[in-house]
Amino acid sequence: MDTETKKVKSDIEIANDAYIKPITEIAAELDISDNEIELYGKYKAKLSLDILNRLDQSEDGKLILVTAINPTKAGEGKTTVTVGLADAFTALGEKAMIAMREPSLGPVMGIKGGAAGGGYSQVLPMTEINLHFNGDIHAITAANNTLAALIDNHLHQGNHLCIDPRKIVWKRVVDINDRALRNVVVGLGGPMQGIPREDGFDITVASEIMAVVCLAQDLDDMKERLSRMVVAWTYNDEPVTVQDLGVEGALALLLKDAIKPNIVQTIAHTPALIHGGPFANIAHGCNSAIATRTALKLADYVVTEAGFGADLGAEKFLNIKSRMAGLKPDAVVIVATIRALKMHGGVDKNELGTEDIGALKKGIENLKKHGETISSFGLPFVIALNRFVTDTHLELEVFKGLMEQENIPYALTEVWEKGGAGGTALAESIKQIIDEKENHYAPLYELTHSIEDKITIIAKKVYGAEGVDFTPQARKKLEKFKEQGWDSLPVCMAKTQYSLSDNPNALGRPSGFTITIRDLKPSIGAGFIVALTGDIMTMPGLPKHPAALNMDVTEDGKAIGLF
Amino acid sequence: MDTETKKVKSDIEIANDAYIKPITEIAAELDISDNEIELYGKYKAKLSLDILNRLDQSEDGKLILVTAINPTKAGEGKTTVTVGLADAFTALGEKAMIAMREPSLGPVMGIKGGAAGGGYSQVLPMTEINLHFNGDIHAITAANNTLAALIDNHLHQGNHLCIDPRKIVWKRVVDINDRALRNVVVGLGGPMQGIPREDGFDITVASEIMAVVCLAQDLDDMKERLSRMVVAWTYNDEPVTVQDLGVEGALALLLKDAIKPNIVQTIAHTPALIHGGPFANIAHGCNSAIATRTALKLADYVVTEAGFGADLGAEKFLNIKSRMAGLKPDAVVIVATIRALKMHGGVDKNELGTEDIGALKKGIENLKKHGETISSFGLPFVIALNRFVTDTHLELEVFKGLMEQENIPYALTEVWEKGGAGGTALAESIKQIIDEKENHYAPLYELTHSIEDKITIIAKKVYGAEGVDFTPQARKKLEKFKEQGWDSLPVCMAKTQYSLSDNPNALGRPSGFTITIRDLKPSIGAGFIVALTGDIMTMPGLPKHPAALNMDVTEDGKAIGLF
Repeated sequence: MDTETKKVKSDIEIANDAYIKPITEIAAELDISDNEIELYGKYKAKLSLDILNRLDQSEDGKLILVTAINPTKAGEGKTTVTVGLADAFTALGEKAMIAMREPSLGPVMGIKGGAAGGGYSQVLPMTEINLHFNGDIHAITAANNTLAALIDNHLHQGNHLCIDPRKIVWKRVVDINDRALRNVVVGLGGPMQGIPREDGFDITVASEIMAVVCLAQDLDDMKERLSRMVVAWTYNDEPVTVQDLGVEGALALLLKDAIKPNIVQTIAHTPALIHGGPFANIAHGCNSAIATRTALKLADYVVTEAGFGADLGAEKFLNIKSRMAGLKPDAVVIVATIRALKMHGGVDKNELGTEDIGALKKGIENLKKHGETISSFGLPFVIALNRFVTDTHLELEVFKGLMEQENIPYALTEVWEKGGAGGTALAESIKQIIDEKENHYAPLYELTHSIEDKITIIAKKVYGAEGVDFTPQARKKLEKFKEQGWDSLPVCMAKTQYSLSDNPNALGRPSGFTITIRDLKPSIGAGFIVALTGDIMTMPGLPKHPAALNMDVTEDGKAIGLF
Repeated sequence: MDTETKKVKSDIEIANDAYIKPITEIAAELDISDNEIELYGKYKAKLSLDILNRLDQSEDGKLILVTAINPTKAGEGKTTVTVGLADAFTALGEKAMIAMREPSLGPVMGIKGGAAGGGYSQVLPMTEINLHFNGDIHAITAANNTLAALIDNHLHQGNHLCIDPRKIVWKRVVDINDRALRNVVVGLGGPMQGIPREDGFDITVASEIMAVVCLAQDLDDMKERLSRMVVAWTYNDEPVTVQDLGVEGALALLLKDAIKPNIVQTIAHTPALIHGGPFANIAHGCNSAIATRTALKLADYVVTEAGFGADLGAEKFLNIKSRMAGLKPDAVVIVATIRALKMHGGVDKNELGTEDIGALKKGIENLKKHGETISSFGLPFVIALNRFVTDTHLELEVFKGLMEQENIPYALTEVWEKGGAGGTALAESIKQIIDEKENHYAPLYELTHSIEDKITIIAKKVYGAEGVDFTPQARKKLEKFKEQGWDSLPVCMAKTQYSLSDNPNALGRPSGFTITIRDLKPSIGAGFIVALTGDIMTMPGLPKHPAALNMDVTEDGKAIGLF
């Protein structure tokens, strides 16, 4: 294949042309027995939860978290670096594995067109991973909406729990970007058609059930978490849980397979566990704890990813997921691009082709802040500068100079174009910091801190805020949650991903700002309190020209238009 | 296992205790190659559409349709007889196979608790078949709702097709019984949240996409059918199709695996293709054409099932599905029970334990009418009397006497308790009528008949009506559909399943009635015109005590509470 052809290939073309091994071969190389794997076609499978029991006494591999600067419209390529880095470890002869999130169909059909890495750093089979995969998200949709139907049916059949129809907080979901469902009225049409009330739909990955599946330790823990979910409040303002409705068994039954991690492979045949994909604002934005723990038992280097930038994804990975799942991360990668840094320095998206050293220097402040955050968790990190053809020689030199001047470890990556070979410098650098640097990982706050204190610690240490304001509504919730004994839970911040602050337009490294907590929401099944800043969208919309318009399938079942 | 224990076992207990072969073994016995099967776990798989091409020149097996009297609350056991009959053929040493519908989650969680046969005539793995199976229904939900979101997005983004928001006929779906979604208002909340309009949700199996998947010949035919679906009308009252929106490719891509038939097995290891499950009122109520055609290539006796009673399911199987799929049925089984016949004779559900010869004789008139209908299609049939412990000796003798008096072939079945051994008399009887009786199968009407004539032929010949009334609205639609050139399509009757007439309370064999066509609905992708009589429910509701309340899953993943 000559380079010219290679350069113009789309992601789906690269994926369709790649050689893919039967997943049974990949599993056999990991000493996974026939009883521990359930095939879903030839190239994907689910793994049994029994693997964790069998390998309970084995030592864990090294855990590397990939995070990023605050995302911009220029794109950073965090997933691509995650995949490429794991392939780089494989190229270096290490036993590596990926643990990452599964794509939601909504964004695939909307703007994204796919979310399985890119170029020569992709997971395969790309089409199936981007579409229904092994049915996890559909199972969560079904469980979420079964619960919703049972709640409205409870109202309709006499409402002996005295649920206030105005205070039902459990929403229905679809795994589609569907803005027309954000605010709806249901139960219209007369007494046989339910009780009329205001309602709304979220996208499935924003369902608390997704967070529950991703944080559960096993099937029983998942059932207990489901039973604790608060779905409504009574006329007397007492919480109504799934347990009160008596349907945690049915929900757990619907999710008994969704809780099992999915195994696939990269183009370089590195095994990848792709499992769970909770939102990174109103949820914690990481793949399942079970997948990460399973990968750590099966490989020496596990590369995992968290959503959005380090202020949201890494913060939650380190304060929520790692604490709940008993994980001890070994190193962190912060992904940036020259283009995105320039945007953080004030350059317009259409001007990114133009060299701009001033903007670059200014934008690097955003990156440095995220580095400081990772250090405050007691963890070593490496910057991955993901190269683009438009990066100029001078821009790269300035970037390197600044990193070296501040003694910040970094590596350039070219994983989109070169796969694992484009990430070996990064992999070497990570091995080095794991060997040489000290690791005193600890969450930033204790669970015994009050909710206000937890939020304030995150706002000051992670965002660089001067303080936190709570609206009267948020203050009321603080009181109420304390009464319910919920104040010992960790906090899940719902904040714009675009800025360190709660103002999406404040790029770079804003200072002198405060964070306003507008409202608080209990996710008792997931096991955290969501703190809402600004307007957080839990149901995206479709763009003027949705990706779906470009999609097709050939007569022999090959996908067209995914990317 | 002693009989005492055996008798009290529930369906799920029988299923959980049954020996199940790896599905690869079942496939190997059918000479299906590794390339033609995709495993979904160890006990279920999808089959490639290539099997149909490979076996294009092979002779088809015999096709036996199982239908029933009009269903009653007493239960007839049509699916159980379907499974038991196939096992009976297997027990007789024949190469038999089942082609039947897959269960919808809504009824499973609502009243039914399961739909995979019963007792010792079940398909396995019962739990997975009843829950998400191989994702077909979820894929249809996703495709249906992606299309809905794209339509509302089209409105929101400028509406260049001039869709009248009051005339969007494409509804959203969930695979749940959720009465509160029957009538909703969407798009509320201001200009960023879409265009407000009245809307409603159907259950997924009522989606036209389900009918399309079940009637498509292959992937390309499916895409063409999808492109023809009418989703809305313009301000000028012109139809707007999926092709106008340009998204048939995306929908086909989402359905590329759902179109492949699923293979499982019975307790007796008879292979079963369980694929597709369209409603039997607003759609045609039969498993996919591809599954039936594939089974006919792989086995000598294929037992298939149609929804509800012969007036709906069999009529559509013979007038719509067989015509479109090029099937030539060989024989029909009409299932009845003494209990159900007594209900048709006027006995109350609570009195079914009491012997009532008068009611039985009266109820048998319902059965005889269905026999006459099958004869009018030129097909031989056998009555399967599915035995119940409450049947008295005299009731059975009276039944037999009446059948013999009228020279109607019949057999008693005990397949719930005995599996295939309880159905061998029926299987022998079928073999005999296939050998001995003449088969002049032809649909009851020609496609060149007008829609009025098609409906009138069905109403008179199948229902025994004196005539058909069309409401003014229906008359308007007849005109409109003729303009569009849709009058050459077959008609899909949406009528109550409980009665031969359009009055659900008129049991037995009503006479002197007319059928009122309230409205007509184009299902141009499926390829038929739906004729609506009375109120047809396309979104069921949950009962006071939904089956979901009894469900659970054990620590090791076994289901509880399915039946």
